Amino acid sequence: MAKVGVIMGSVSDWETMKEACDILEELDVAYEKKVVSAHRTPDLMFQYAEEAEQKGIEVIIAGAGGAAHLPGMVAAKTLVPVIGVPVQSKALNGMDSLLSIVQMPKGVPVATVAIGKAGAANAGLLAAQMVAVHDEGVKLRLKKRRANAQKMAIESSDQLV
Amino acid sequence: MAKVGVIMGSVSDWETMKEACDILEELDVAYEKKVVSAHRTPDLMFQYAEEAEQKGIEVIIAGAGGAAHLPGMVAAKTLVPVIGVPVQSKALNGMDSLLSIVQMPKGVPVATVAIGKAGAANAGLLAAQMVAVHDEGVKLRLKKRRANAQKMAIESSDQLV
Amino acid sequence: MAKVGVIMGSVSDWETMKEACDILEELDVAYEKKVVSAHRTPDLMFQYAEEAEQKGIEVIIAGAGGAAHLPGMVAAKTLVPVIGVPVQSKALNGMDSLLSIVQMPKGVPVATVAIGKAGAANAGLLAAQMVAVHDEGVKLRLKKRRANAQKMAIESSDQLV
Amino acid sequence: MAKVGVIMGSVSDWETMKEACDILEELDVAYEKKVVSAHRTPDLMFQYAEEAEQKGIEVIIAGAGGAAHLPGMVAAKTLVPVIGVPVQSKALNGMDSLLSIVQMPKGVPVATVAIGKAGAANAGLLAAQMVAVHDEGVKLRLKKRRANAQKMAIESSDQLV
Amino acid sequence: MAKVGVIMGSVSDWETMKEACDILEELDVAYEKKVVSAHRTPDLMFQYAEEAEQKGIEVIIAGAGGAAHLPGMVAAKTLVPVIGVPVQSKALNGMDSLLSIVQMPKGVPVATVAIGKAGAANAGLLAAQMVAVHDEGVKLRLKKRRANAQKMAIESSDQLV
Amino acid sequence: MAKVGVIMGSVSDWETMKEACDILEELDVAYEKKVVSAHRTPDLMFQYAEEAEQKGIEVIIAGAGGAAHLPGMVAAKTLVPVIGVPVQSKALNGMDSLLSIVQMPKGVPVATVAIGKAGAANAGLLAAQMVAVHDEGVKLRLKKRRANAQKMAIESSDQLV
Amino acid sequence: MAKVGVIMGSVSDWETMKEACDILEELDVAYEKKVVSAHRTPDLMFQYAEEAEQKGIEVIIAGAGGAAHLPGMVAAKTLVPVIGVPVQSKALNGMDSLLSIVQMPKGVPVATVAIGKAGAANAGLLAAQMVAVHDEGVKLRLKKRRANAQKMAIESSDQLV
Amino acid sequence: MAKVGVIMGSVSDWETMKEACDILEELDVAYEKKVVSAHRTPDLMFQYAEEAEQKGIEVIIAGAGGAAHLPGMVAAKTLVPVIGVPVQSKALNGMDSLLSIVQMPKGVPVATVAIGKAGAANAGLLAAQMVAVHDEGVKLRLKKRRANAQKMAIESSDQLV
Repeated sequence: MAKVGVIMGSVSDWETMKEACDILEELDVAYEKKVVSAHRTPDLMFQYAEEAEQKGIEVIIAGAGGAAHLPGMVAAKTLVPVIGVPVQSKALNGMDSLLSIVQMPKGVPVATVAIGKAGAANAGLLAAQMVAVHDEGVKLRLKKRRANAQKMAIESSDQLV
Repeated sequence: MAKVGVIMGSVSDWETMKEACDILEELDVAYEKKVVSAHRTPDLMFQYAEEAEQKGIEVIIAGAGGAAHLPGMVAAKTLVPVIGVPVQSKALNGMDSLLSIVQMPKGVPVATVAIGKAGAANAGLLAAQMVAVHDEGVKLRLKKRRANAQKMAIESSDQLV
Repeated sequence: MAKVGVIMGSVSDWETMKEACDILEELDVAYEKKVVSAHRTPDLMFQYAEEAEQKGIEVIIAGAGGAAHLPGMVAAKTLVPVIGVPVQSKALNGMDSLLSIVQMPKGVPVATVAIGKAGAANAGLLAAQMVAVHDEGVKLRLKKRRANAQKMAIESSDQLV
Repeated sequence: MAKVGVIMGSVSDWETMKEACDILEELDVAYEKKVVSAHRTPDLMFQYAEEAEQKGIEVIIAGAGGAAHLPGMVAAKTLVPVIGVPVQSKALNGMDSLLSIVQMPKGVPVATVAIGKAGAANAGLLAAQMVAVHDEGVKLRLKKRRANAQKMAIESSDQLV
Repeated sequence: MAKVGVIMGSVSDWETMKEACDILEELDVAYEKKVVSAHRTPDLMFQYAEEAEQKGIEVIIAGAGGAAHLPGMVAAKTLVPVIGVPVQSKALNGMDSLLSIVQMPKGVPVATVAIGKAGAANAGLLAAQMVAVHDEGVKLRLKKRRANAQKMAIESSDQLV
Repeated sequence: MAKVGVIMGSVSDWETMKEACDILEELDVAYEKKVVSAHRTPDLMFQYAEEAEQKGIEVIIAGAGGAAHLPGMVAAKTLVPVIGVPVQSKALNGMDSLLSIVQMPKGVPVATVAIGKAGAANAGLLAAQMVAVHDEGVKLRLKKRRANAQKMAIESSDQLV
Repeated sequence: MAKVGVIMGSVSDWETMKEACDILEELDVAYEKKVVSAHRTPDLMFQYAEEAEQKGIEVIIAGAGGAAHLPGMVAAKTLVPVIGVPVQSKALNGMDSLLSIVQMPKGVPVATVAIGKAGAANAGLLAAQMVAVHDEGVKLRLKKRRANAQKMAIESSDQLV
Repeated sequence: MAKVGVIMGSVSDWETMKEACDILEELDVAYEKKVVSAHRTPDLMFQYAEEAEQKGIEVIIAGAGGAAHLPGMVAAKTLVPVIGVPVQSKALNGMDSLLSIVQMPKGVPVATVAIGKAGAANAGLLAAQMVAVHDEGVKLRLKKRRANAQKMAIESSDQLV
């Protein structure tokens, strides 16, 4: 049963959001993925948000670009924590996506990460960290992942030639 | 019966959105006004958008600040044209409101006006211009208003002392 | 007889503005198209704006980039609603176009849409929505278009692999 | 025993960060608060981050302004989820704080909220939502809070005069 | 007979544009001043631009804020050099005014100066420098003004206490 | 004898500044061109500015990118009008060049044009317009150029297919 | 004999630059201060830069706002390290000052600090750190200052009430 | 023994940071280089900063992109002067890197240079200038380098064809 729901406004966001899913698979965190568009499928979006908690979803990752309303609107319809991923947009490089997601009014938070693929990967990690608070297995895998990243960083000095 | 629906995300937007209503009253265009919050009353927002057309609403003016999702989400739920007013926000002066409203994805347009009170007044004028396409009385009053503005602009040169 | 006038500041804007025309054709809304430059053909611009109403034009779509004066100047010369499309500019990615179009002073509104091709397509849709207020045929075609977009969005989840 | 740790770079951030603490008190979520400066007390910062998990802290809220390194550095030293609050800065209105917090590289996420007091309040709510995944009491109080906010939004239409 | 024409989009721009006139008076350069609004008095604007050359105007200073179309449109209608002053706007601090004025397309230049009062004063100086190319009296007064500014700058070190 | 001096901070700016020279040649305005770097040849820069007037230079066009100090420093050393061209920079697309050139303090104006090649071409036109105030031949050629641009704009509508 | 030269473009920058001088006095680093304007006293500026090294100046702190050319031009005329302080400007809050100072081309670096008073104070500290590399007394006083700042940060938690 | 320590957050920054090393080699300034990541190797970063002074490091050059915490955190842990290089980031072109590095709070300065490769080269030059204050050999080589750059700038005018 999925603990993390990964949704995105358009199939064109998949190239970005795949990074989140890759992390979740690497860490063995159960997840589901779906195109849910705030503007093209608003009723489906509300239904998804309403059902998330009872389905056992513990955290939702929502990616969108431009006037990115998906993360904020889902957050308005559920108390499951929502992580928002600003997809890099064509004209404004994701600055519009970032502000549309992060500048939520008092009352409905969205946990916003960086613009683009790095942000999507971090959304996966953040979701895993939330799950790990009550799941030792995920926590252990996160710790190993960090140790490995540290090791690779240290070794990479050899490539400075 | 109201032809224009004026909605806003919070009662604190009223100081701005009152400008739109003042214009509509001045031009004798029937309107209604309401607080409809995308984030605090999402279901009411959807209901408002779904019922607008059958109520005879010909254009909706929606004002919001920050991650301003109200105009775009209403536009996703109705084919009645939606005018979006970016309310000036505290930290970013309405640049966040502007981008959240104007940068809509292909498929769901929002007719965006300037940030703040001037934008709200212009939203009222734009709504009246839309109504005026099929309403000679409103068109006549709009023409008089413009003629008057022109006259005042010309006369104002006397104040350059 | 054209109900929508599509104008642009330069033939180089056509790649963008074609998106608006494609939508109008798809929805069977009569339109005309023309290069009208605020800076190279200012008198023609004024003439176009002055004649629009009597020609039966119900809405004007004007696209321009950089210091984009076309939409605002046309709006100053007619009461026909004007939709402004910020064409993506070379150095500043259309942020200059957007601000030059949307930040109109009180008295002369321009209905601004998103930067670039998505914005141009949405300008076509917004114009059609305005026409549809008094045209059941256009409204029906808009509804079908939205239903189709919704269907495609839902089905696209299958491509997340 | 505190489940949420609220830290900030300077006592001058307290006016902002108090909003987070007020929410946590309102929702009866145990928390602790402390000035931990990335730049003036870097060793204390590392110590705080290292000890958080074993102290039972489930989520850390970190607020800072300008070159706001506190949230990201704490996140680099613990797997407890970190929420970053961009405090509004003097010259750049918090745009520097926002980018310094949200644009984290792949590997170390920070859950970023809006600039300023609204963001701080939302950090409190987001932390409570995370706790609520495994705490029915907090979830119930969050639901009541939302219902109340909805009720107040609906009633506020009466003030549009 | 005026050599410099100072125009502005609104009487509210006078506080800024007065700086240009003060400089012209100080340097004894003949000028005229007038409110000419691109959006409220478009025909008057065109007439002003068309008549400038035959009236003996050698340079036009045009100030406007927001979607500041006045300088560029006047420049499109005359070959008299046009200096544009971006008046500081309310929400975006004149960044919109600046981009609307400076980002002119190839073919129609506007000589843009700094945002606000300093820019307006510099517009007066720039106009005087243009006139001075063929007017020794103005050149002499400009030289004296600079020498005096230099002297005051040097002496001001005494105030660093 | 050159009436216009075209200078640039680096030979890499030539691709941009060539546009200015092309216009001056087309309009048969005598000019000279030179690399003068504010940062690599500061003394040469001062010498160039000091000698410009006595050499008969009536206007200087100065192009530079990034922290573009050339136009403003030349303007500080001569009363010959200086036109500044913000060369498009690598990281910030010329926004840094634009602000470094246009935001001059009260006392020393720089006539700033658009970022990049369009701006450089317009610098050539603006210089020609300044010269044309006292040169009927240049004025005539400018008028013909505008008439031709107008004709081409009108005819270009045929290409909208 | 002064080891640090503190210069600024205008006496109005003194309110900001005083912060640098206060730090230098607190740390007992010999300094001199002077108004040196790039635009009003360009020759004095060059003279100051040329004489700095032989006078024994080890580091120059230069503050300026808007099109802030002072730090970069001084840096072009001396090999003494130059620290640039972006003074907060009126319209653009110092973003123009920052970019004009920091975006120097390859060949002439300016060590840029934060916008405004905090940046000026840090310029004083940075200058002292440079001096301290070869001055144990200054290094000791810097260490004491940091230890004290750390102590005050830790104690300030008591004020979170 | 190295006088300059060049560190960077990731091996992917090497393409940029190599510019600094090339300058140091050209000027025969002893340096060391290393990948030190604020977020992946925080303890190593602290250790590096703590040991720098006793190792004889006189200046540290630290490059990082996005939420670039490396320069500021190193600066918080040592009194050796730190030069920060904002590496050009993918989405925001290094504006995030720049603000994260330069906007340091009062107490801990970072000497920030331009975004990208030009900035990295200038970091090398700035470090050499600092070393040169007490090293005549380096000073001489810096002077020769400048003289050569000046000569090449002057000769490059021949390429304007």
